[in-house]
Amino acid sequence: MTAERTQRRLIAIGSGKGGVGKSTLTANLAIALQKAGRKVGLVDADIYGPSQPVILGNQGQKPVARDEKLVPVESAFGIPVLSMGHLVEPGRALAWRGPMAGNALAQLVDAHWGDVDTLLVDLPPGTGDVQLTMLQRFKPVGAVLVSTPQDLALMDAARAGQLFDQAGVPVIGLVENMAGYVCPHCGEVSDPFGKGGVEKAAGRLELPFLGRIPLDLAIREGSDRGEPPASGDDAFAKPFHDIAAKVDAWIGARS
Amino acid sequence: MTAERTQRRLIAIGSGKGGVGKSTLTANLAIALQKAGRKVGLVDADIYGPSQPVILGNQGQKPVARDEKLVPVESAFGIPVLSMGHLVEPGRALAWRGPMAGNALAQLVDAHWGDVDTLLVDLPPGTGDVQLTMLQRFKPVGAVLVSTPQDLALMDAARAGQLFDQAGVPVIGLVENMAGYVCPHCGEVSDPFGKGGVEKAAGRLELPFLGRIPLDLAIREGSDRGEPPASGDDAFAKPFHDIAAKVDAWIGARS
Repeated sequence: MTAERTQRRLIAIGSGKGGVGKSTLTANLAIALQKAGRKVGLVDADIYGPSQPVILGNQGQKPVARDEKLVPVESAFGIPVLSMGHLVEPGRALAWRGPMAGNALAQLVDAHWGDVDTLLVDLPPGTGDVQLTMLQRFKPVGAVLVSTPQDLALMDAARAGQLFDQAGVPVIGLVENMAGYVCPHCGEVSDPFGKGGVEKAAGRLELPFLGRIPLDLAIREGSDRGEPPASGDDAFAKPFHDIAAKVDAWIGARS
Repeated sequence: MTAERTQRRLIAIGSGKGGVGKSTLTANLAIALQKAGRKVGLVDADIYGPSQPVILGNQGQKPVARDEKLVPVESAFGIPVLSMGHLVEPGRALAWRGPMAGNALAQLVDAHWGDVDTLLVDLPPGTGDVQLTMLQRFKPVGAVLVSTPQDLALMDAARAGQLFDQAGVPVIGLVENMAGYVCPHCGEVSDPFGKGGVEKAAGRLELPFLGRIPLDLAIREGSDRGEPPASGDDAFAKPFHDIAAKVDAWIGARS
């Protein structure tokens, strides 16, 4: 542990299950926290399925190494980021066993993060090597859990929560994603994945509920196009800024 | 390799990315292939996030061991299944490093599958230990890839495809999931995750396109409730039976 590293707080963004919007939340939370005055960096710890280079629109850039440590890649949103997606060519599978994945995480976290004070770690699905290496070597100050309202996703979120709990990492709160889809034809709202399940689960687990992000084409397309909604100031930015305000307050209360 | 095992074909269901409906497809494909006359078993290889006990409605049952091998658990749909979800209590995180996950897979595959001739393996996200152990120890005859039409999901599906390709496992085809959501208010169709991207990707990769499964509350609720749509005979069963017919023909052509 260097003096540099102990000044920097890690916040893990986890879900247990994949495909529930963890990477989208992480990128937008990073941007919103930065707008709130934090110096934020982002580690894409989804070694096998990195998506941050696409979401943050800096695919194709390569990090350089200095003194055997990586220098993070800049993004158009002022968020430096490190991702395996910057180190391997797109579409290439990393057929790596766990220890290599754990080492890769260490390289991404233990890098030249400069004046970054808050490092968000976008975790892969599961509770395996990457999660264990993070908990053992780079203990986060807190974790945000994201889930869709579907029972099957909540089950995996509970598993992820239990892992943080065992490691003594406080869960800052839960985020519900993909609730409330507005029909582009009639404007009525419906919920393909259900609604309210995450807020109920938060109550049951006695954890804070941080907010709800709608299922919306604009958010999905923004992620595919490298334009995270939180970088703008329209209606799709708001839920991310509201969640970031709660995370910011949580950090403030513990500093 | 025992004589018994060489008679049994493994088919892997993969996606690269989580949360795209891989487990739902696997359960329904198993039921549909069984209705088509195959003797089908199901291995839930998502060690960290097992969902088959919920989808197949046999949560809480425990497999017994005989001669140091597991005996699969029956389900109401005539599909024997083995899943870590049957071996650990719900909500409990398996904080396992890769070698343990790989060993767990071996225990699930190398079990008393009896007269099962076709074993579907529901893979976890990523291209790590479980995938590598499967490819090295229990080579599948073919793989089905499932993705949503979203660019970010397709990217991970391409990675999974590359892994099978490197291992000499033919990809039977691609399935598009979560396309075409019917608004419950006005009945009009829209596509929160886009549409057609998987069929286009199949064309680009010169792989067969097996079909499209709509985003529908009925399918999601059926999965959460342990009632897979393919077990019925309504409109939601059809896409699964159509896909199963193509997989069945593929198996037939190679036997």
